[in-house]
Amino acid sequence: MKKWNFGAGPSILPPEVMKATADACVDYNGLGLSLMEMSHRTKDFQAVMDEAQDLFKELLGIPEGYSVLFVGGGASLEFCMVPYNLLEKKAAYLNTGVWAKKALKEAKLFGEVVEVASSAADNFTYIPREYTVPADADYFHITTNNTIYGTELREDLDSPVPLVADMSSDIFSRPVDVSKYALIYGGAQKNLSMAGVTFVIVKDEILGKVSRPIPTMLDYRTHASKGSMFNTPPVIPIYCALQTLKWIKAQGGVKEMERRAIERAELLYAEIDRNKMFRGTACKDSRSLMNICFVMADEYKDLEKEFLAFAQEKGMVGIKGHRDVGGFRASCYNAMPLEGVKALVACMQEFEAQH
Amino acid sequence: MKKWNFGAGPSILPPEVMKATADACVDYNGLGLSLMEMSHRTKDFQAVMDEAQDLFKELLGIPEGYSVLFVGGGASLEFCMVPYNLLEKKAAYLNTGVWAKKALKEAKLFGEVVEVASSAADNFTYIPREYTVPADADYFHITTNNTIYGTELREDLDSPVPLVADMSSDIFSRPVDVSKYALIYGGAQKNLSMAGVTFVIVKDEILGKVSRPIPTMLDYRTHASKGSMFNTPPVIPIYCALQTLKWIKAQGGVKEMERRAIERAELLYAEIDRNKMFRGTACKDSRSLMNICFVMADEYKDLEKEFLAFAQEKGMVGIKGHRDVGGFRASCYNAMPLEGVKALVACMQEFEAQH
Repeated sequence: MKKWNFGAGPSILPPEVMKATADACVDYNGLGLSLMEMSHRTKDFQAVMDEAQDLFKELLGIPEGYSVLFVGGGASLEFCMVPYNLLEKKAAYLNTGVWAKKALKEAKLFGEVVEVASSAADNFTYIPREYTVPADADYFHITTNNTIYGTELREDLDSPVPLVADMSSDIFSRPVDVSKYALIYGGAQKNLSMAGVTFVIVKDEILGKVSRPIPTMLDYRTHASKGSMFNTPPVIPIYCALQTLKWIKAQGGVKEMERRAIERAELLYAEIDRNKMFRGTACKDSRSLMNICFVMADEYKDLEKEFLAFAQEKGMVGIKGHRDVGGFRASCYNAMPLEGVKALVACMQEFEAQH
Repeated sequence: MKKWNFGAGPSILPPEVMKATADACVDYNGLGLSLMEMSHRTKDFQAVMDEAQDLFKELLGIPEGYSVLFVGGGASLEFCMVPYNLLEKKAAYLNTGVWAKKALKEAKLFGEVVEVASSAADNFTYIPREYTVPADADYFHITTNNTIYGTELREDLDSPVPLVADMSSDIFSRPVDVSKYALIYGGAQKNLSMAGVTFVIVKDEILGKVSRPIPTMLDYRTHASKGSMFNTPPVIPIYCALQTLKWIKAQGGVKEMERRAIERAELLYAEIDRNKMFRGTACKDSRSLMNICFVMADEYKDLEKEFLAFAQEKGMVGIKGHRDVGGFRASCYNAMPLEGVKALVACMQEFEAQH
C-alpha cells in the first residue's frame, strides 16, 4: 500500500532526491568511491558545495552582499549564534510558539530582550499583527512557520531594524524578498535535506558589529569567509540538499512550490471546514500552508483515536498532532504530491460516511 | 581497477557500512519510507540511537557515570564547548599540531591557558613526553592523533587533573581506558561515520561546575539529559555510525582493530625505513598507526611528483601529504584492508626498481 508521509520533520523528500543520495553513498559519479569517503577538499565535493550555494541563491533570488552558509548543529544552535553575533544591547522577538520561545530564551544570555507580542494566551493559534518593534533594537526575530500550531507568517515584513527569521519549516515554499532580511536560518530537515545541516543566509554587512569576542565556530564570519569549509562540513546532507535544490528548479522554482502548497492547503482546509466531524485549530488569517492542524469537532471528540487508526490503515503516516495541540497535523511540505492530500481528504470523507 | 582510499578524512569506511546506509536512505527496514524522512521521535529511530549509544559503550568498555553524546558541528565546535563547560580559571593544553593549537586558541576566550609543552619548533614531528601539568588546572587537553604530522599518543596518560582528549582520528583503533578521561570527543569522519556527527564521551560528574551561563545547545548537560535528542540529531550520520560500530564488533572489537592497525603500520613503516628513496617524517617513538607520513629522501626529492602520479595510476587515492609536511600521507584507518597497504608497498618497490 502506498504510504503518504505527513510527518512534521524529518519529513518527506522527493523520491529522486533520496535515490540520488543513496547512489552517491555507494559510488559517486562512477569514481569507484562513495561520496562519504571522499575528502571535502576534493574538486568533486567543492563542485557540490559551489553548486548548492549558487542554486540556493538563484532559487531565492538572493541579492549581492549576502552569504549562504551550510553548517552543523541545527536551528537550535542558531538560537544562540544569532545573539552571539548580533545582539549588542537589545533584541526584539515575536513569540509565536515553542521554537520562538526557545530562540528568545537564548538571546536573554546576551542582552536585553523585548517580546514585542505573543499569542501564548491563545495557545499560539494566530500570528500577532499589532505590535511595535523598538527602533533601538539590534534586530527583530520572527519564526515564519510554527509547525506545532500550524500558523505561518507568509509575508515579508517591513521591519525598522534588521530582520532575522527562522524559516526552518517553510523555506523554499514561496518566493521570499531576501533583501528585507538581515539573516534567515533554518534546519534542513523539512523542505531542504535530511537532518544534519543548517542553512544560514546572512547579509555580510551586519556582521562584526558586536563588541564581545565570539568563539571561532560560532562566528558567522568564519563560515562566510571560508565558503562553509572552515572545518569538515556535513558532506552527505549538503549533497542531499543540492539534489532537492535541483528538483525544485526542475519543477519550476519557488513560485511553483507556492502554487502547489496553496493548492494542497486549500483542498485540505476546505475539507476541514466542510466536514462536521473536524475543526481547524489555527485562526484563518494565520493558517500555515506547511502544517495543517485540526482536531475532532467537540461532539466527535471520543472518535479521535479511531480516526487516527483509520487513517493509518489507509496509509497516512505521521498525522498525529503535537501534544500541545492534540488531534491531527498533516504536514504538507514541498515534496507532498496533491494525491497525498486527496487521499487524506478521501479518508476524512469515508470516516464521516461511516459515522 | 581497485582503488585504495588512503585519504585523511572524510575517509574510507567498510563497504558494508556504506551499502547499509545507502539502503536505509531508500527504504528503511521495508517500512516503505526512507530513514531520512522519518521522525527522530519514532520508535524506529529511537532504537537506532539507543543501539548506537549502547554499542559505543560496549566496544570501548565505558564505565558507569559516563554519557555518550552524538551532536552536530564537528570537533571544531567542541574546541569552544570544552572550555565553555569546564574552564573556570585555568586550563592546560599539550600543543602537538594545528588541531591542538586551534583547540587551545578557543580556550583562551574563557580563561587562562597554559601550554605545557609544544613540538612546534620541530614541526610537530613528535609527541612531547616531558612536562608538568599544573595541579590547579581545571583540565588537561590532548590531541591523541595528529593527522597532519602522523604522530600519535597511544597510551592513556595519568593526569593529575581531568583529562580531555580529541580522539577524532584514532577512536576505535585501540582499547582505551576511558576511566582515565573526563571527556573524549571527535568528529566521526575517520573511524566512525560519514561527516556530520560528533561523538562526546563525558563523565557526568565533571559538568555543572563552571559559574558562567552556557547557551543551551553548548551545554553538554542538555544533550546528556535528553539522550542526544534535545533537538533533531543528524539521523543518517548516526545510522551510519551504528553500522560501523556493528562492523567493529563483528570483526572482533577494538583489540582486533588495534592488531590490524599495528600489522598495517609495521608493514608500511618497514618499507619506508628499508626503501632508500623514502624517509618517514615522524619520530619513531611518536609514529601514528593511523596516518603514516613520509617524503622522498633528499637525493630523490625531484621525483616527488612522479611518484605521486605513479601511485595514483596504480589506484592509490588521497596519498598526497598535507602542505605543512609535504610528501605523502597514507591514512590507514580501521576500514583499510592489509591488501591496500600491500598494494602501496608494492608501488614503492616498483618505483624503486625503476630508478
